Amino acid sequence: MKILSQARSFSGTQAVYAHTSDTCQCEMQFAVFTPSERKHGKGPFPVLYWLSGLTCTEENFIAKAGAQRVAAELGLIVVASDTSPRGEGVPDDPDGAYDFGLGAGFYLNATEEPWAANYNMGDYITEELPALIEKEFSVDPTRAGIFGHSMGGHGALTIHLKNQKKFKSCSAFAPIVAPSSVPWGRKAFSHYLGSDERRWAPYDAVALLNDHGTSDAHILIDQGTADNFLQEQLKPELFKAAADEAGQALTLRMQDGYDHSYYFISTFMEDHLRWHAKQLAL
Amino acid sequence: MKILSQARSFSGTQAVYAHTSDTCQCEMQFAVFTPSERKHGKGPFPVLYWLSGLTCTEENFIAKAGAQRVAAELGLIVVASDTSPRGEGVPDDPDGAYDFGLGAGFYLNATEEPWAANYNMGDYITEELPALIEKEFSVDPTRAGIFGHSMGGHGALTIHLKNQKKFKSCSAFAPIVAPSSVPWGRKAFSHYLGSDERRWAPYDAVALLNDHGTSDAHILIDQGTADNFLQEQLKPELFKAAADEAGQALTLRMQDGYDHSYYFISTFMEDHLRWHAKQLAL
Repeated sequence: MKILSQARSFSGTQAVYAHTSDTCQCEMQFAVFTPSERKHGKGPFPVLYWLSGLTCTEENFIAKAGAQRVAAELGLIVVASDTSPRGEGVPDDPDGAYDFGLGAGFYLNATEEPWAANYNMGDYITEELPALIEKEFSVDPTRAGIFGHSMGGHGALTIHLKNQKKFKSCSAFAPIVAPSSVPWGRKAFSHYLGSDERRWAPYDAVALLNDHGTSDAHILIDQGTADNFLQEQLKPELFKAAADEAGQALTLRMQDGYDHSYYFISTFMEDHLRWHAKQLAL
Repeated sequence: MKILSQARSFSGTQAVYAHTSDTCQCEMQFAVFTPSERKHGKGPFPVLYWLSGLTCTEENFIAKAGAQRVAAELGLIVVASDTSPRGEGVPDDPDGAYDFGLGAGFYLNATEEPWAANYNMGDYITEELPALIEKEFSVDPTRAGIFGHSMGGHGALTIHLKNQKKFKSCSAFAPIVAPSSVPWGRKAFSHYLGSDERRWAPYDAVALLNDHGTSDAHILIDQGTADNFLQEQLKPELFKAAADEAGQALTLRMQDGYDHSYYFISTFMEDHLRWHAKQLAL
Protein backbone atom coordinates (compact mmCIF):
# COMPACT_ATOMS: atom_id res chain seq x y z
CA MET A 1 0.00 0.00 0.00
CA LYS A 2 1.37 3.42 -0.92
CA ILE A 3 0.06 6.85 -0.04
CA LEU A 4 -0.88 9.16 -2.93
CA SER A 5 -2.12 12.20 -1.02
CA GLN A 6 -2.89 13.28 2.50
CA ALA A 7 -4.57 16.40 3.88
CA ARG A 8 -5.76 17.48 7.28
CA SER A 9 -9.54 17.83 7.38
CA PHE A 10 -11.65 18.67 10.44
CA SER A 11 -8.72 17.76 12.71
CA GLY A 12 -8.57 14.31 11.10
CA THR A 13 -6.82 13.11 7.96
CA GLN A 14 -8.20 12.57 4.47
CA ALA A 15 -5.81 10.39 2.48
CA VAL A 16 -5.77 8.46 -0.79
CA TYR A 17 -3.88 5.19 -1.18
CA ALA A 18 -3.04 2.74 -3.95
CA HIS A 19 -2.35 -0.97 -3.75
CA THR A 20 -2.01 -3.92 -6.07
CA SER A 21 -5.28 -5.83 -6.03
CA ASP A 22 -5.10 -9.58 -6.48
CA THR A 23 -8.87 -9.68 -6.85
CA CYS A 24 -9.03 -7.13 -9.66
CA GLN A 25 -5.58 -7.85 -11.13
CA CYS A 26 -4.65 -4.17 -11.29
CA GLU A 27 -3.63 -1.26 -9.10
CA MET A 28 -6.62 0.06 -7.17
CA GLN A 29 -7.03 3.38 -5.35
CA PHE A 30 -9.13 4.10 -2.31
CA ALA A 31 -9.59 6.96 0.15
CA VAL A 32 -9.64 6.81 3.93
CA PHE A 33 -10.73 9.46 6.42
CA THR A 34 -9.35 8.92 9.90
CA PRO A 35 -10.53 11.00 12.86
CA SER A 36 -8.18 12.92 15.12
CA GLU A 37 -6.28 10.75 17.59
CA ARG A 38 -6.04 13.74 19.90
CA LYS A 39 -9.82 13.87 20.11
CA HIS A 40 -10.76 10.20 19.86
CA GLY A 41 -7.67 8.26 20.91
CA LYS A 42 -6.07 5.50 18.87
CA GLY A 43 -9.26 3.51 18.27
CA PRO A 44 -10.17 0.94 17.17
CA PHE A 45 -12.81 2.96 15.32
CA PRO A 46 -16.06 1.91 13.68
CA VAL A 47 -15.60 1.87 9.89
CA LEU A 48 -17.95 2.75 7.04
CA TYR A 49 -17.39 1.69 3.44
CA TRP A 50 -18.71 4.11 0.80
CA LEU A 51 -19.50 2.86 -2.72
CA SER A 52 -19.81 5.51 -5.41
CA GLY A 53 -22.00 5.69 -8.49
CA LEU A 54 -21.36 5.43 -12.22
CA THR A 55 -18.36 7.39 -13.57
CA CYS A 56 -16.97 8.13 -10.10
CA THR A 57 -13.62 7.36 -8.52
CA GLU A 58 -12.77 7.56 -4.82
CA GLU A 59 -12.31 11.30 -5.35
CA ASN A 60 -15.94 12.37 -5.80
CA PHE A 61 -17.01 11.33 -2.34
CA ILE A 62 -14.09 12.83 -0.46
CA ALA A 63 -14.27 16.16 -2.31
CA LYS A 64 -18.03 16.65 -2.46
CA ALA A 65 -19.99 14.63 0.10
CA GLY A 66 -18.97 16.66 3.14
CA ALA A 67 -18.71 13.55 5.32
CA GLN A 68 -15.52 14.51 7.14
CA ARG A 69 -17.11 16.99 9.56
CA VAL A 70 -19.50 14.49 11.12
CA ALA A 71 -17.12 11.53 10.82
CA ALA A 72 -14.62 13.64 12.76
CA GLU A 73 -17.22 14.37 15.41
CA LEU A 74 -18.43 10.78 15.75
CA GLY A 75 -15.01 9.14 15.51
CA LEU A 76 -15.68 7.11 12.35
CA ILE A 77 -13.21 5.87 9.76
CA VAL A 78 -14.74 6.23 6.30
CA VAL A 79 -13.32 4.29 3.35
CA ALA A 80 -14.28 5.23 -0.23
CA SER A 81 -13.39 2.75 -2.95
CA ASP A 82 -13.11 3.16 -6.69
CA THR A 83 -16.02 1.95 -8.84
CA SER A 84 -14.17 -0.49 -11.12
CA PRO A 85 -10.78 -1.90 -11.93
CA ARG A 86 -8.64 0.46 -14.04
CA GLY A 87 -5.37 0.68 -15.88
CA GLU A 88 -3.66 -0.70 -18.95
CA GLY A 89 -4.96 -4.12 -19.84
CA VAL A 90 -8.31 -3.62 -18.08
CA PRO A 91 -11.02 -3.88 -20.75
CA ASP A 92 -13.55 -1.07 -21.16
CA ASP A 93 -16.80 -0.69 -23.03
CA PRO A 94 -15.76 -0.59 -26.71
CA ASP A 95 -17.79 2.59 -27.20
CA GLY A 96 -16.55 4.15 -23.97
CA ALA A 97 -20.07 4.27 -22.54
CA TYR A 98 -20.36 5.83 -19.08
CA ASP A 99 -22.62 3.08 -17.75
CA PHE A 100 -20.48 0.01 -18.43
CA GLY A 101 -16.81 -0.92 -18.10
CA LEU A 102 -14.45 1.55 -16.45
CA GLY A 103 -16.22 3.46 -13.68
CA ALA A 104 -19.09 1.00 -13.79
CA GLY A 105 -18.07 -2.21 -12.06
CA PHE A 106 -21.48 -2.71 -10.40
CA TYR A 107 -19.86 -4.35 -7.35
CA LEU A 108 -20.17 -7.89 -8.73
CA ASN A 109 -17.84 -10.70 -9.81
CA ALA A 110 -17.92 -10.96 -13.60
CA THR A 111 -18.05 -14.43 -15.08
CA GLU A 112 -17.91 -13.56 -18.80
CA GLU A 113 -14.94 -12.70 -21.00
CA PRO A 114 -13.17 -10.33 -21.29
CA TRP A 115 -14.44 -9.03 -17.92
CA ALA A 116 -13.89 -11.97 -15.58
CA ALA A 117 -10.19 -11.40 -14.87
CA ASN A 118 -10.52 -7.85 -13.56
CA TYR A 119 -14.16 -7.03 -12.83
CA ASN A 120 -14.43 -8.62 -9.39
CA MET A 121 -15.58 -5.63 -7.35
CA GLY A 122 -17.88 -7.93 -5.36
CA ASP A 123 -15.02 -9.86 -3.79
CA TYR A 124 -12.87 -6.74 -3.71
CA ILE A 125 -15.31 -4.82 -1.50
CA THR A 126 -16.37 -7.83 0.57
CA GLU A 127 -12.96 -9.44 1.14
CA GLU A 128 -9.80 -7.83 -0.15
CA LEU A 129 -10.40 -4.19 0.78
CA PRO A 130 -11.68 -4.85 4.34
CA ALA A 131 -8.75 -7.21 4.97
CA LEU A 132 -6.33 -4.48 3.90
CA ILE A 133 -8.13 -1.81 5.94
CA GLU A 134 -8.16 -4.04 9.03
CA LYS A 135 -4.45 -4.66 8.61
CA GLU A 136 -3.40 -1.05 8.01
CA PHE A 137 -5.86 1.02 10.09
CA SER A 138 -7.19 0.95 13.60
CA VAL A 139 -10.69 -0.28 12.80
CA ASP A 140 -13.04 -2.48 14.79
CA PRO A 141 -14.20 -5.15 12.29
CA THR A 142 -17.22 -5.92 14.47
CA ARG A 143 -18.49 -2.36 13.89
CA ALA A 144 -18.44 -1.99 10.08
CA GLY A 145 -21.18 -0.57 7.88
CA ILE A 146 -21.67 0.06 4.18
CA PHE A 147 -23.41 2.78 2.21
CA GLY A 148 -23.38 4.24 -1.27
CA HIS A 149 -25.01 6.23 -4.05
CA SER A 150 -26.89 5.05 -7.14
CA MET A 151 -24.83 2.10 -8.51
CA GLY A 152 -23.03 2.26 -5.16
CA GLY A 153 -26.37 2.13 -3.34
CA HIS A 154 -27.03 -1.07 -5.28
CA GLY A 155 -23.64 -2.32 -4.15
CA ALA A 156 -24.26 -1.39 -0.51
CA LEU A 157 -27.70 -3.05 -0.38
CA THR A 158 -26.65 -6.28 -2.09
CA ILE A 159 -23.35 -6.67 -0.24
CA HIS A 160 -25.04 -5.93 3.09
CA LEU A 161 -27.87 -8.39 2.51
CA LYS A 162 -25.37 -11.16 1.69
CA ASN A 163 -22.81 -10.25 4.38
CA GLN A 164 -24.69 -8.77 7.29
CA LYS A 165 -22.20 -10.09 9.82
CA LYS A 166 -19.40 -8.24 8.05
CA PHE A 167 -21.34 -5.05 7.25
CA LYS A 168 -23.81 -4.63 10.07
CA SER A 169 -25.39 -1.31 9.03
CA CYS A 170 -26.53 -0.21 5.58
CA SER A 171 -27.87 2.91 3.94
CA ALA A 172 -28.17 4.28 0.43
CA PHE A 173 -28.74 7.46 -1.53
CA ALA A 174 -30.86 7.02 -4.65
CA PRO A 175 -29.87 3.37 -5.09
CA ILE A 176 -30.49 1.11 -8.06
CA VAL A 177 -32.58 -1.49 -6.22
CA ALA A 178 -33.70 -3.80 -9.04
CA PRO A 179 -30.88 -3.85 -11.62
CA SER A 180 -32.27 -6.95 -13.31
CA SER A 181 -35.26 -4.96 -14.48
CA VAL A 182 -33.82 -1.54 -15.39
CA PRO A 183 -31.66 -0.51 -18.38
CA TRP A 184 -28.42 0.26 -16.49
CA GLY A 185 -28.49 -3.09 -14.73
CA ARG A 186 -29.65 -5.18 -17.66
CA LYS A 187 -26.86 -3.81 -19.85
CA ALA A 188 -24.17 -4.38 -17.23
CA PHE A 189 -25.36 -7.78 -16.03
CA SER A 190 -25.82 -9.21 -19.53
CA HIS A 191 -22.17 -8.41 -20.30
CA TYR A 192 -20.58 -9.19 -16.92
CA LEU A 193 -22.74 -12.20 -16.00
CA GLY A 194 -24.13 -13.49 -19.30
CA SER A 195 -27.65 -13.90 -20.57
CA ASP A 196 -28.92 -16.44 -18.02
CA GLU A 197 -30.88 -14.13 -15.75
CA ARG A 198 -30.96 -16.66 -12.91
CA ARG A 199 -27.32 -15.74 -12.33
CA TRP A 200 -28.26 -12.09 -11.86
CA ALA A 201 -30.34 -12.62 -8.72
CA PRO A 202 -27.42 -12.53 -6.20
CA TYR A 203 -26.73 -8.99 -7.41
CA ASP A 204 -30.28 -7.66 -7.29
CA ALA A 205 -31.41 -6.19 -3.96
CA VAL A 206 -35.10 -6.86 -4.58
CA ALA A 207 -34.41 -10.46 -5.65
CA LEU A 208 -32.14 -10.92 -2.60
CA LEU A 209 -34.90 -9.86 -0.22
CA ASN A 210 -37.18 -12.38 -1.85
CA ASP A 211 -34.69 -15.24 -2.15
CA HIS A 212 -31.97 -14.70 0.43
CA GLY A 213 -33.98 -13.08 3.20
CA THR A 214 -33.75 -10.03 5.40
CA SER A 215 -30.97 -8.59 7.53
CA ASP A 216 -31.17 -7.56 11.17
CA ALA A 217 -30.25 -3.99 10.29
CA HIS A 218 -32.65 -1.10 9.88
CA ILE A 219 -31.83 0.17 6.38
CA LEU A 220 -32.09 3.89 5.52
CA ILE A 221 -32.69 5.05 1.94
CA ASP A 222 -32.97 8.68 0.82
CA GLN A 223 -34.31 9.41 -2.66
CA GLY A 224 -34.81 12.80 -4.29
CA THR A 225 -38.12 13.38 -6.03
CA ALA A 226 -36.48 15.52 -8.76
CA ASP A 227 -33.95 12.80 -9.63
CA ASN A 228 -33.87 12.35 -13.42
CA PHE A 229 -33.21 8.62 -13.01
CA LEU A 230 -35.97 7.92 -10.51
CA GLN A 231 -38.62 6.53 -12.84
CA GLU A 232 -36.53 4.51 -15.27
CA GLN A 233 -33.48 3.30 -13.33
CA LEU A 234 -33.98 3.55 -9.56
CA LYS A 235 -37.55 2.57 -8.61
CA PRO A 236 -37.16 2.55 -4.80
CA GLU A 237 -40.82 1.57 -4.49
CA LEU A 238 -39.84 -1.92 -5.64
CA PHE A 239 -37.44 -2.28 -2.71
CA LYS A 240 -40.02 -0.84 -0.32
CA ALA A 241 -42.59 -3.40 -1.47
CA ALA A 242 -40.10 -6.27 -1.19
CA ALA A 243 -38.99 -5.08 2.26
CA ASP A 244 -42.58 -4.86 3.48
CA GLU A 245 -43.29 -8.33 2.10
CA ALA A 246 -40.14 -9.87 3.58
CA GLY A 247 -40.23 -8.02 6.88
CA GLN A 248 -37.04 -6.02 6.30
CA ALA A 249 -36.76 -2.95 8.53
CA LEU A 250 -36.49 -0.01 6.12
CA THR A 251 -36.91 3.74 6.26
CA LEU A 252 -37.39 5.15 2.76
CA ARG A 253 -37.49 8.94 2.68
CA MET A 254 -38.62 10.71 -0.50
CA GLN A 255 -36.84 14.08 -0.39
CA ASP A 256 -38.84 16.77 -2.11
CA GLY A 257 -37.11 18.55 -4.96
CA TYR A 258 -33.68 16.91 -4.67
CA ASP A 259 -31.87 15.55 -7.72
CA HIS A 260 -29.25 12.80 -8.22
CA SER A 261 -26.20 14.97 -7.48
CA TYR A 262 -23.78 15.42 -4.61
CA TYR A 263 -25.87 18.47 -3.59
CA PHE A 264 -28.47 15.90 -2.59
CA ILE A 265 -25.94 13.54 -1.02
CA SER A 266 -24.19 16.24 1.03
CA THR A 267 -27.52 17.52 2.35
CA PHE A 268 -28.37 14.19 3.96
CA MET A 269 -24.86 12.85 4.65
CA GLU A 270 -25.02 13.87 8.30
CA ASP A 271 -28.23 11.89 8.81
CA HIS A 272 -26.66 8.78 7.29
CA LEU A 273 -23.47 8.98 9.34
CA ARG A 274 -25.46 9.38 12.55
CA TRP A 275 -27.75 6.51 11.46
CA HIS A 276 -24.76 4.18 11.01
CA ALA A 277 -23.09 5.30 14.24
CA LYS A 278 -26.26 4.50 16.14
CA GLN A 279 -26.71 1.10 14.48
CA LEU A 280 -23.07 0.17 15.06
CA ALA A 281 -23.29 1.11 18.74
CA LEU A 282 -26.05 -1.44 19.34
CA MET B 1 -28.88 36.24 -17.43
CA LYS B 2 -29.54 32.60 -18.16
CA ILE B 3 -29.58 29.63 -15.83
CA LEU B 4 -27.13 26.80 -16.53
CA SER B 5 -27.91 24.46 -13.64
CA GLN B 6 -29.94 24.35 -10.48
CA ALA B 7 -30.04 21.84 -7.62
CA ARG B 8 -31.70 21.76 -4.25
CA SER B 9 -29.14 21.84 -1.45
CA PHE B 10 -29.89 21.98 2.29
CA SER B 11 -33.47 23.10 1.54
CA GLY B 12 -32.10 26.03 -0.49
CA THR B 13 -30.99 26.24 -4.11
CA GLN B 14 -27.51 26.05 -5.61
CA ALA B 15 -27.58 27.43 -9.14
CA VAL B 16 -25.13 28.49 -11.83
CA TYR B 17 -25.84 31.36 -14.21
CA ALA B 18 -24.24 32.95 -17.26
CA HIS B 19 -24.49 36.51 -18.49
CA THR B 20 -22.80 38.78 -21.00
CA SER B 21 -20.34 40.95 -19.16
CA ASP B 22 -19.76 44.45 -20.50
CA THR B 23 -16.83 44.83 -18.14
CA CYS B 24 -15.00 41.71 -19.29
CA GLN B 25 -16.33 41.67 -22.86
CA CYS B 26 -17.27 38.01 -22.71
CA GLU B 27 -19.79 35.61 -21.26
CA MET B 28 -19.18 35.12 -17.55
CA GLN B 29 -20.51 32.41 -15.24
CA PHE B 30 -21.24 32.68 -11.55
CA ALA B 31 -22.93 30.54 -8.89
CA VAL B 32 -25.54 31.62 -6.36
CA PHE B 33 -26.78 29.78 -3.29
CA THR B 34 -30.15 31.02 -2.06
CA PRO B 35 -31.61 29.85 1.26
CA SER B 36 -35.03 28.29 1.60
CA GLU B 37 -37.88 30.78 1.39
CA ARG B 38 -39.97 28.43 3.50
CA LYS B 39 -37.48 28.76 6.32
CA HIS B 40 -36.28 32.33 5.93
CA GLY B 41 -39.00 34.13 3.98
CA LYS B 42 -38.40 36.11 0.81
CA GLY B 43 -35.55 38.23 2.14
CA PRO B 44 -33.86 40.54 1.45
CA PHE B 45 -30.90 38.41 2.55
CA PRO B 46 -27.35 39.36 3.47
CA VAL B 47 -25.01 38.43 0.61
CA LEU B 48 -21.44 37.14 0.56
CA TYR B 49 -19.21 37.23 -2.50
CA TRP B 50 -16.67 34.40 -2.75
CA LEU B 51 -13.52 34.83 -4.86
CA SER B 52 -11.67 31.64 -5.80
CA GLY B 53 -7.99 30.98 -6.28
CA LEU B 54 -5.80 30.25 -9.29
CA THR B 55 -7.17 27.71 -11.82
CA CYS B 56 -10.65 27.69 -10.29
CA THR B 57 -14.04 28.47 -11.76
CA GLU B 58 -17.25 29.11 -9.84
CA GLU B 59 -17.60 25.31 -9.60
CA ASN B 60 -14.81 24.53 -7.10
CA PHE B 61 -16.39 26.50 -4.30
CA ILE B 62 -19.92 25.20 -4.71
CA ALA B 63 -18.83 21.56 -5.02
CA LYS B 64 -16.13 21.44 -2.36
CA ALA B 65 -16.36 24.21 0.24
CA GLY B 66 -19.41 22.88 2.05
CA ALA B 67 -20.81 26.39 2.57
CA GLN B 68 -24.42 25.57 1.79
CA ARG B 69 -25.25 23.93 5.13
CA VAL B 70 -24.41 26.96 7.24
CA ALA B 71 -25.58 29.52 4.66
CA ALA B 72 -28.92 27.70 4.70
CA GLU B 73 -29.03 27.89 8.48
CA LEU B 74 -28.04 31.56 8.69
CA GLY B 75 -30.11 32.73 5.73
CA LEU B 76 -27.22 33.98 3.59
CA ILE B 77 -27.02 34.30 -0.17
CA VAL B 78 -23.55 33.27 -1.33
CA VAL B 79 -22.28 34.29 -4.78
CA ALA B 80 -19.18 32.61 -6.27
CA SER B 81 -17.66 34.25 -9.33
CA ASP B 82 -15.26 32.92 -11.92
CA THR B 83 -11.57 33.86 -11.61
CA SER B 84 -11.03 35.46 -15.03
CA PRO B 85 -12.73 36.29 -18.31
CA ARG B 86 -13.00 33.28 -20.63
CA GLY B 87 -14.02 32.29 -24.11
CA GLU B 88 -12.94 32.71 -27.70
CA GLY B 89 -11.05 35.92 -28.23
CA VAL B 90 -9.99 36.20 -24.59
CA PRO B 91 -6.17 36.09 -24.52
CA ASP B 92 -4.38 33.54 -22.35
CA ASP B 93 -0.81 33.05 -21.22
CA PRO B 94 1.02 31.96 -24.39
CA ASP B 95 2.47 28.98 -22.53
CA GLY B 96 -0.82 28.12 -20.86
CA ALA B 97 0.64 28.72 -17.39
CA TYR B 98 -1.73 28.10 -14.49
CA ASP B 99 -0.79 31.30 -12.68
CA PHE B 100 -1.51 33.87 -15.37
CA GLY B 101 -4.24 34.47 -17.96
CA LEU B 102 -7.31 32.22 -17.91
CA GLY B 103 -8.19 31.25 -14.36
CA ALA B 104 -5.83 33.89 -13.01
CA GLY B 105 -7.46 37.31 -13.34
CA PHE B 106 -6.16 38.56 -9.97
CA TYR B 107 -9.29 40.71 -9.45
CA LEU B 108 -7.73 43.80 -11.02
CA ASN B 109 -8.32 46.01 -14.07
CA ALA B 110 -5.59 45.36 -16.61
CA THR B 111 -4.08 48.36 -18.37
CA GLU B 112 -1.68 46.60 -20.74
CA GLU B 113 -2.33 44.94 -24.08
CA PRO B 114 -3.60 42.39 -24.91
CA TRP B 115 -5.21 42.08 -21.46
CA ALA B 116 -6.94 45.43 -21.01
CA ALA B 117 -10.10 44.67 -22.99
CA ASN B 118 -11.15 41.59 -21.00
CA TYR B 119 -9.18 41.35 -17.76
CA ASN B 120 -11.23 43.76 -15.68
CA MET B 121 -12.17 41.51 -12.78
CA GLY B 122 -11.71 44.43 -10.37
CA ASP B 123 -14.63 46.37 -11.82
CA TYR B 124 -16.53 43.17 -12.50
CA ILE B 125 -16.53 42.11 -8.83
CA THR B 126 -16.94 45.61 -7.45
CA GLU B 127 -19.57 46.95 -9.84
CA GLU B 128 -21.08 44.76 -12.54
CA LEU B 129 -21.67 41.53 -10.60
CA PRO B 130 -23.20 43.16 -7.49
CA ALA B 131 -25.47 45.29 -9.69
CA LEU B 132 -26.70 42.14 -11.44
CA ILE B 133 -27.13 40.25 -8.16
CA GLU B 134 -29.05 43.15 -6.62
CA LYS B 135 -31.33 43.28 -9.67
CA GLU B 136 -32.01 39.56 -9.91
CA PHE B 137 -31.93 38.30 -6.30
CA SER B 138 -33.47 39.36 -3.03
CA VAL B 139 -30.30 40.72 -1.42
CA ASP B 140 -29.82 43.57 1.03
CA PRO B 141 -26.97 45.63 -0.47
CA THR B 142 -26.29 47.24 2.90
CA ARG B 143 -25.36 43.79 4.27
CA ALA B 144 -22.75 42.50 1.78
CA GLY B 145 -19.43 40.87 2.59
CA ILE B 146 -16.54 39.42 0.61
CA PHE B 147 -14.21 36.49 1.16
CA GLY B 148 -11.94 34.23 -0.82
CA HIS B 149 -9.05 31.82 -1.06
CA SER B 150 -5.42 32.41 -2.11
CA MET B 151 -5.61 34.70 -5.18
CA GLY B 152 -9.25 35.19 -4.16
CA GLY B 153 -8.16 36.08 -0.65
CA HIS B 154 -6.03 38.77 -2.24
CA GLY B 155 -9.09 39.89 -4.17
CA ALA B 156 -11.28 39.97 -1.07
CA LEU B 157 -8.78 41.94 1.02
CA THR B 158 -7.99 44.54 -1.65
CA ILE B 159 -11.58 45.01 -2.81
CA HIS B 160 -12.79 45.28 0.78
CA LEU B 161 -10.14 47.82 1.78
CA LYS B 162 -11.04 50.03 -1.19
CA ASN B 163 -14.82 49.53 -0.97
CA GLN B 164 -15.70 49.02 2.65
CA LYS B 165 -19.09 50.66 2.27
CA LYS B 166 -20.02 48.14 -0.42
CA PHE B 167 -18.41 45.06 1.17
CA LYS B 168 -18.69 45.59 4.91
CA SER B 169 -17.19 42.32 6.12
CA CYS B 170 -14.08 40.53 4.88
CA SER B 171 -12.30 37.26 5.49
CA ALA B 172 -9.78 35.12 3.67
CA PHE B 173 -8.31 31.62 3.54
CA ALA B 174 -4.57 31.50 2.82
CA PRO B 175 -4.59 34.83 0.96
CA ILE B 176 -1.85 36.36 -1.15
CA VAL B 177 -1.39 39.53 0.92
CA ALA B 178 1.61 41.19 -0.75
CA PRO B 179 1.42 40.32 -4.45
CA SER B 180 3.93 43.04 -5.40
CA SER B 181 6.65 41.14 -3.60
CA VAL B 182 5.91 37.48 -4.38
CA PRO B 183 6.39 35.51 -7.63
CA TRP B 184 2.71 34.91 -8.45
CA GLY B 185 1.84 38.57 -8.04
CA ARG B 186 4.93 40.01 -9.71
CA LYS B 187 4.36 37.87 -12.79
CA ALA B 188 0.70 38.77 -13.07
CA PHE B 189 1.04 42.47 -12.24
CA SER B 190 3.96 43.03 -14.62
CA HIS B 191 1.85 41.71 -17.50
CA TYR B 192 -1.56 43.12 -16.54
CA LEU B 193 -0.38 46.47 -15.14
CA GLY B 194 3.04 47.05 -16.69
CA SER B 195 6.45 47.50 -15.18
CA ASP B 196 5.81 50.69 -13.21
CA GLU B 197 5.36 49.21 -9.76
CA ARG B 198 3.68 52.35 -8.41
CA ARG B 199 0.60 51.23 -10.35
CA TRP B 200 0.59 47.92 -8.48
CA ALA B 201 -0.10 49.40 -5.04
CA PRO B 202 -3.91 49.65 -5.38
CA TYR B 203 -3.93 45.88 -5.81
CA ASP B 204 -1.65 45.00 -2.92
CA ALA B 205 -3.33 44.49 0.46
CA VAL B 206 -0.23 45.37 2.48
CA ALA B 207 0.39 48.50 0.40
CA LEU B 208 -3.28 49.47 0.72
CA LEU B 209 -3.12 49.29 4.52
CA ASN B 210 -0.10 51.56 4.41
CA ASP B 211 -1.36 53.99 1.76
CA HIS B 212 -5.14 53.82 1.71
CA GLY B 213 -5.84 53.13 5.36
CA THR B 214 -7.85 50.70 7.42
CA SER B 215 -11.46 49.54 7.26
CA ASP B 216 -13.97 49.46 10.08
CA ALA B 217 -14.37 45.69 9.73
CA HIS B 218 -12.67 43.07 11.84
CA ILE B 219 -10.94 40.91 9.22
CA LEU B 220 -10.54 37.14 9.73
CA ILE B 221 -7.71 35.21 8.05
CA ASP B 222 -7.10 31.46 8.38
CA GLN B 223 -3.78 30.05 7.17
CA GLY B 224 -2.64 26.43 7.25
CA THR B 225 0.86 25.80 8.55
CA ALA B 226 1.41 22.90 6.09
CA ASP B 227 0.51 25.05 3.08
CA ASN B 228 3.17 24.56 0.37
CA PHE B 229 2.78 28.18 -0.73
CA LEU B 230 3.05 29.75 2.71
CA GLN B 231 6.70 30.80 2.67
CA GLU B 232 7.13 31.93 -0.92
CA GLN B 233 3.74 33.27 -2.04
CA LEU B 234 1.42 33.99 0.89
CA LYS B 235 3.38 35.54 3.79
CA PRO B 236 0.43 36.42 6.05
CA GLU B 237 2.88 37.83 8.60
CA LEU B 238 3.35 40.82 6.28
CA PHE B 239 -0.36 41.63 6.49
CA LYS B 240 -0.35 41.10 10.24
CA ALA B 241 2.53 43.55 10.66
CA ALA B 242 0.87 46.12 8.39
CA ALA B 243 -2.46 45.69 10.22
CA ASP B 244 -0.80 46.15 13.61
CA GLU B 245 1.02 49.23 12.33
CA ALA B 246 -2.09 50.75 10.73
CA GLY B 247 -4.53 49.78 13.46
CA GLN B 248 -6.57 47.38 11.32
CA ALA B 249 -8.65 44.93 13.37
CA LEU B 250 -7.45 41.49 12.28
CA THR B 251 -7.63 37.96 13.59
CA LEU B 252 -4.99 35.79 11.90
CA ARG B 253 -5.25 32.13 12.84
CA MET B 254 -2.40 29.76 11.95
CA GLN B 255 -4.07 26.35 11.60
CA ASP B 256 -1.72 23.55 12.51
CA GLY B 257 -1.11 20.94 9.81
CA TYR B 258 -3.58 22.25 7.21
CA ASP B 259 -2.57 22.64 3.57
CA HIS B 260 -3.79 24.90 0.72
CA SER B 261 -6.68 22.67 -0.40
CA TYR B 262 -10.44 22.69 -0.07
CA TYR B 263 -10.00 20.21 2.82
CA PHE B 264 -8.59 23.20 4.70
CA ILE B 265 -11.25 25.59 3.40
CA SER B 266 -14.20 23.31 4.20
CA THR B 267 -12.90 22.73 7.74
CA PHE B 268 -13.10 26.43 8.60
CA MET B 269 -15.92 27.52 6.27
CA GLU B 270 -18.49 27.45 9.08
CA ASP B 271 -16.37 29.81 11.19
CA HIS B 272 -16.10 32.27 8.30
CA LEU B 273 -19.80 32.26 7.50
CA ARG B 274 -20.70 32.88 11.14
CA TRP B 275 -18.03 35.60 11.31
CA HIS B 276 -19.58 37.42 8.35
CA ALA B 277 -23.14 36.95 9.61
CA LYS B 278 -22.16 38.52 12.91
CA GLN B 279 -20.32 41.44 11.29
CA LEU B 280 -23.19 42.11 8.89
CA ALA B 281 -25.73 42.10 11.73
CA LEU B 282 -23.92 45.00 13.46
